Amino acid sequence: MSNQIVDRLYEKVEKNGVVCVGLDTDISYIPESIINEFTNIEDAIFQYNRRIIDATYDVVACFKLQIAYYEALGISGLIAYKKTLEYLRERKLITIADIKRGDIAATAKMYAKAHFTGEFESDFITLNPYMGMDSIEPYLPYLESKSKGIFALVKTSNKGSGDIQDCNIDGKGTVYDHVGNMIESLGRDFLGNSGYSSLGVVVGCTHIEQAKRLRENLKSSYFLIPGYGAQGGKAEDVAVSLRVGNGGVVNSSRKILLAYKEEENYLHFEDSSRKEAIRMREDIRRAVLELEAKNEG
Amino acid sequence: MSNQIVDRLYEKVEKNGVVCVGLDTDISYIPESIINEFTNIEDAIFQYNRRIIDATYDVVACFKLQIAYYEALGISGLIAYKKTLEYLRERKLITIADIKRGDIAATAKMYAKAHFTGEFESDFITLNPYMGMDSIEPYLPYLESKSKGIFALVKTSNKGSGDIQDCNIDGKGTVYDHVGNMIESLGRDFLGNSGYSSLGVVVGCTHIEQAKRLRENLKSSYFLIPGYGAQGGKAEDVAVSLRVGNGGVVNSSRKILLAYKEEENYLHFEDSSRKEAIRMREDIRRAVLELEAKNEG
Repeated sequence: MSNQIVDRLYEKVEKNGVVCVGLDTDISYIPESIINEFTNIEDAIFQYNRRIIDATYDVVACFKLQIAYYEALGISGLIAYKKTLEYLRERKLITIADIKRGDIAATAKMYAKAHFTGEFESDFITLNPYMGMDSIEPYLPYLESKSKGIFALVKTSNKGSGDIQDCNIDGKGTVYDHVGNMIESLGRDFLGNSGYSSLGVVVGCTHIEQAKRLRENLKSSYFLIPGYGAQGGKAEDVAVSLRVGNGGVVNSSRKILLAYKEEENYLHFEDSSRKEAIRMREDIRRAVLELEAKNEG
Repeated sequence: MSNQIVDRLYEKVEKNGVVCVGLDTDISYIPESIINEFTNIEDAIFQYNRRIIDATYDVVACFKLQIAYYEALGISGLIAYKKTLEYLRERKLITIADIKRGDIAATAKMYAKAHFTGEFESDFITLNPYMGMDSIEPYLPYLESKSKGIFALVKTSNKGSGDIQDCNIDGKGTVYDHVGNMIESLGRDFLGNSGYSSLGVVVGCTHIEQAKRLRENLKSSYFLIPGYGAQGGKAEDVAVSLRVGNGGVVNSSRKILLAYKEEENYLHFEDSSRKEAIRMREDIRRAVLELEAKNEG
């Protein structure tokens, strides 16, 4: 077995499909029955997350925690964040800490310590590359020594992502092409048996032509794909960022967390989340098969 | 009096000079006497920070907390972070939370809540603009309603900053020029009486020619200037990023925090920090005067 975390993720996607559950837990998402059951915020959030995890872990690839939602609640929120990660580690489920950090090397070392070890330890983290490759490098020793992984922002799912990422650089394509190429090149030192690297990239599914080109150019980069569902991305848009249904995981947060509201299923909210995770997985599977058929035909 | 926080910072620089004390407190920086005095990490860090603050507040412009150093210690570190910000608020001193966040609008709203309100409330925050202007906009309402401020990364002090920031975009100069222009333009809605905006920029003093050009082009942007001292920037390099000794604050972390080690002044470590803060202020004042003389001559 390879030492690279990307191989574990690849295997999980082969087995369970591409869904990444985004635990972007806002208090307003938690049903009253849970809120009333606990005397403090951290326990209510953790209990909510735990029930979603227990109900979905066998039909999804991994779990992503958007740390901003926890930071917004101060120390209590971060205790819930810590407890959720602890629980996921205990269950040996794969975690992505969506922290999008990026800083000079001395500071990057501190962020690496914060999110690859200790109370907030996660398998993967997301990073922002604006400050350059020396802001990514301090994390790389952990990819070998602790089987950790990274997803660096390349082309994000939001509308404004064009402001900087789409600019054309003299002789190097767009900014996102250039960033993608630099990350792909750094990532070649961390290839797993799957052919993918534990240094992956974030590519939104809301910009289809860009995603297609990136999928073609970045041969060994594993994709973290935001933008499906609430942000407007469709299964067809996701399919072009995958390779025969692997090579990436697709995040969904609100649509999975809030599925119970559609069904008015407040007591067994996690059952609705499971149904939505399965629906999403099958939706993407169908789109992948259709794309394969089209490519062969 | 204007409602813009940038005016408070401008006045403070007029009175106390340009030094920003970087409270990037690593445990290894804290003298043993303090460590032994307290039974938990958060109290030791807070006590160390408090003594540095008390010893320097009247000779500096503001205090910057690099949150990575606190995140690296988990919940305890973040309690020390919270306590330090609380103390600074109590003393009505100006704070910069160096968090370099950047995310889609829904997430940015959470970060704004996290760092402009509640337990981690700060006057200014730093932001990473890679995801575009819609990742900055959710913070802007706080500039009016709560007199908050922002420093967006434009040209950072590290070597690798060239990887992306220095790339030439067709017809728009470099990436950092383009980002600087977008921020300057957004910032015009938040101008104070000083002529500066509460939406400022981060421009390192380690790339002198770039800093000069940015200082000329970004008429109303207030600068947060890293890179002095430990990172190699000199007073002369800083002077070109200022206007007659204002228009920016200059961060120093390790050189101020660890000044006591140079003097083997372990018991009254904060006195060495004060001396270093004054030395740095006068060093930059001298360079500003020399530059003025040269420009007039």
